[in-house]
Amino acid sequence: MTSLKDHSKAGSGRVVISVDAMGGDRGPAAVVAGISHSARKNPELDFILHGPEDQLSKLVRKRRGLSERCTIRHAEGVVNMDDKPSQVMRHGKGTSMWSALESVRDGEATVAVSCGNTGALMALSMIRLRKLPGVNRPAIAVLWPSRNPQDFNVMLDVGADIRADAEDLLQYAMMGASYARNGLDLARPRIGLLNVGTEEHKGRAELKQAHDLIEAHAEEGGFDFVGFVEGGDIPGTRCDVIVTDGFTGNVALKTGEGTASLIGDLLKEAFAYSPLSRFASLLALTSMRRLKKRIDPRRVNGGVFLGLNGTVVKSHGSADPTGISAAVKLAFELARSGFGDRLAARVASAAELAQDAAGQKDKKHA
Amino acid sequence: MTSLKDHSKAGSGRVVISVDAMGGDRGPAAVVAGISHSARKNPELDFILHGPEDQLSKLVRKRRGLSERCTIRHAEGVVNMDDKPSQVMRHGKGTSMWSALESVRDGEATVAVSCGNTGALMALSMIRLRKLPGVNRPAIAVLWPSRNPQDFNVMLDVGADIRADAEDLLQYAMMGASYARNGLDLARPRIGLLNVGTEEHKGRAELKQAHDLIEAHAEEGGFDFVGFVEGGDIPGTRCDVIVTDGFTGNVALKTGEGTASLIGDLLKEAFAYSPLSRFASLLALTSMRRLKKRIDPRRVNGGVFLGLNGTVVKSHGSADPTGISAAVKLAFELARSGFGDRLAARVASAAELAQDAAGQKDKKHA
Repeated sequence: MTSLKDHSKAGSGRVVISVDAMGGDRGPAAVVAGISHSARKNPELDFILHGPEDQLSKLVRKRRGLSERCTIRHAEGVVNMDDKPSQVMRHGKGTSMWSALESVRDGEATVAVSCGNTGALMALSMIRLRKLPGVNRPAIAVLWPSRNPQDFNVMLDVGADIRADAEDLLQYAMMGASYARNGLDLARPRIGLLNVGTEEHKGRAELKQAHDLIEAHAEEGGFDFVGFVEGGDIPGTRCDVIVTDGFTGNVALKTGEGTASLIGDLLKEAFAYSPLSRFASLLALTSMRRLKKRIDPRRVNGGVFLGLNGTVVKSHGSADPTGISAAVKLAFELARSGFGDRLAARVASAAELAQDAAGQKDKKHA
Repeated sequence: MTSLKDHSKAGSGRVVISVDAMGGDRGPAAVVAGISHSARKNPELDFILHGPEDQLSKLVRKRRGLSERCTIRHAEGVVNMDDKPSQVMRHGKGTSMWSALESVRDGEATVAVSCGNTGALMALSMIRLRKLPGVNRPAIAVLWPSRNPQDFNVMLDVGADIRADAEDLLQYAMMGASYARNGLDLARPRIGLLNVGTEEHKGRAELKQAHDLIEAHAEEGGFDFVGFVEGGDIPGTRCDVIVTDGFTGNVALKTGEGTASLIGDLLKEAFAYSPLSRFASLLALTSMRRLKKRIDPRRVNGGVFLGLNGTVVKSHGSADPTGISAAVKLAFELARSGFGDRLAARVASAAELAQDAAGQKDKKHA
């Protein structure tokens, strides 16, 4: 068990983000362009960039002012998109992904960002950063455009693990609440448990168990529990955090992305249909940009790995500079809020609470 | 075990649809308006309408030409949206929903349409129509707007049952292929099995089993098996039929609907933002209508219950006359194609095949 790192950078002005330059579909040029954009926008940011030194130093030198704020850490190897997590765990040492995690492990950086292979990144994060004491399964949380005033909801797990029992779902609720407090600035997030109906008698047995467990820990966890929610509530206003297992969450995430992308394409087709509609589309350009900004997946780019000794932001593999920059921004916000330490504290107390959940429940609520 | 009904109306010109007038959110007036619209558009259609006689006859008389093509079958009781399926099974006799299913059971009508409570409708369908020989779990299939040439994909199960083992998933593949052949006119549908990744080593154990089982039966089932697909493929072009358990399918369906509805509302907001954008929206009106027609859930209204002795179309509870009419149209197409009998034949042979699946597999594919 590793002890909690001293994230001495958190809250003290400058924030160091560790960035894996390799492994994304668009190569290191997109990554360097993304961090350069972030660096210009945010003077408090510094970077440690991991990958082949000569290639990276050329890219960094091209961006004015970036060299001074960016340390390059040489790493020869690259984790590819189709590498199996089990292989990467055995042979991943020396890759840019491994190196990026080492900077968080050593406390040089507060958060790591990578757009590489998700399964490999989670596997390496588990062995290098280790799970937080009290966490059984780490989870990946994403932000989802919603009708809520904060514009986004949190959903987890979206694919760290295909299984989750009732206690795992309770931990997801705790971690999701912590993320919503620090990432979305919600004092008392509302948690919903994803199911096929909102009636309490519906759904799988482990969900009914999780329902009661989460309900019993709402007070201690500093959240409100709204009970079961449905797929339609993921972008809705009934709750701020949607808790589910990684299989269901992954399907929901990709279904939502696929649907949004289909509608976007059909919208383009509709506007390209006739001269009149093409004229209308010119007039509608700013309206469309406003809409796009709201639901553009690049702007909410970044799944956050929760439940580890250190925070890891997984950017989309296909992220362009805008997407990379959004992931860096998220990493910065989490680093500055001291999210990692707060989450650790919350989960540790939750673990203690969960241990005597069944026995204590009746007494506490009597 | 009941024997297969003689759906003598199928294929012979006139088609009789049994319609539950009650139980929808908008009451019987919307249902009568919907069937009246269908009747005007399609001269081959006749109806048996179930509900309180005096109320319904008033509504029907108001619609010119409808009385002659619509038999009213008196039923006093109504199944409400919040009635529990178990209660409806015990006390549902005498409701309009029960009565609507009886017309199919007795062979007077080929397909039943209801916009009532889904759980109750499935429960009553199971006890009154019974499962097809060889079917373990019936499924609900929906059409989903897609990029495929046929404009829609089929997904099942979207909520008949929250569980499905490998053999159930094989039956879903068989039934879904049959539905796609008859409902979407695809000679050889491509089947995909929903998972969290397309690699064969990923996912739950029962999915790997189902993968091999479906693959082994593709030839006999008259479909192509494309292997695992992801949430993003539901509106995509990789397959025509997405097979999954009812829990995952229900979450995916509602997530997709919720995402589409959010984007629709944001689009309206974007266009209402300024005088220029409001002007643009006027010019874009026909483009928008074209888009809406393509993805309007009312136009693909109707989940089909598969695996019963008789076909049941479940319309959205909130369906308006346009939605009801779309459900009736779907019911008509399925009735005319003789879908019920074809499905029964296909599933019966699949059941035989599945019984010796494990043993035969090696020999056949050696």
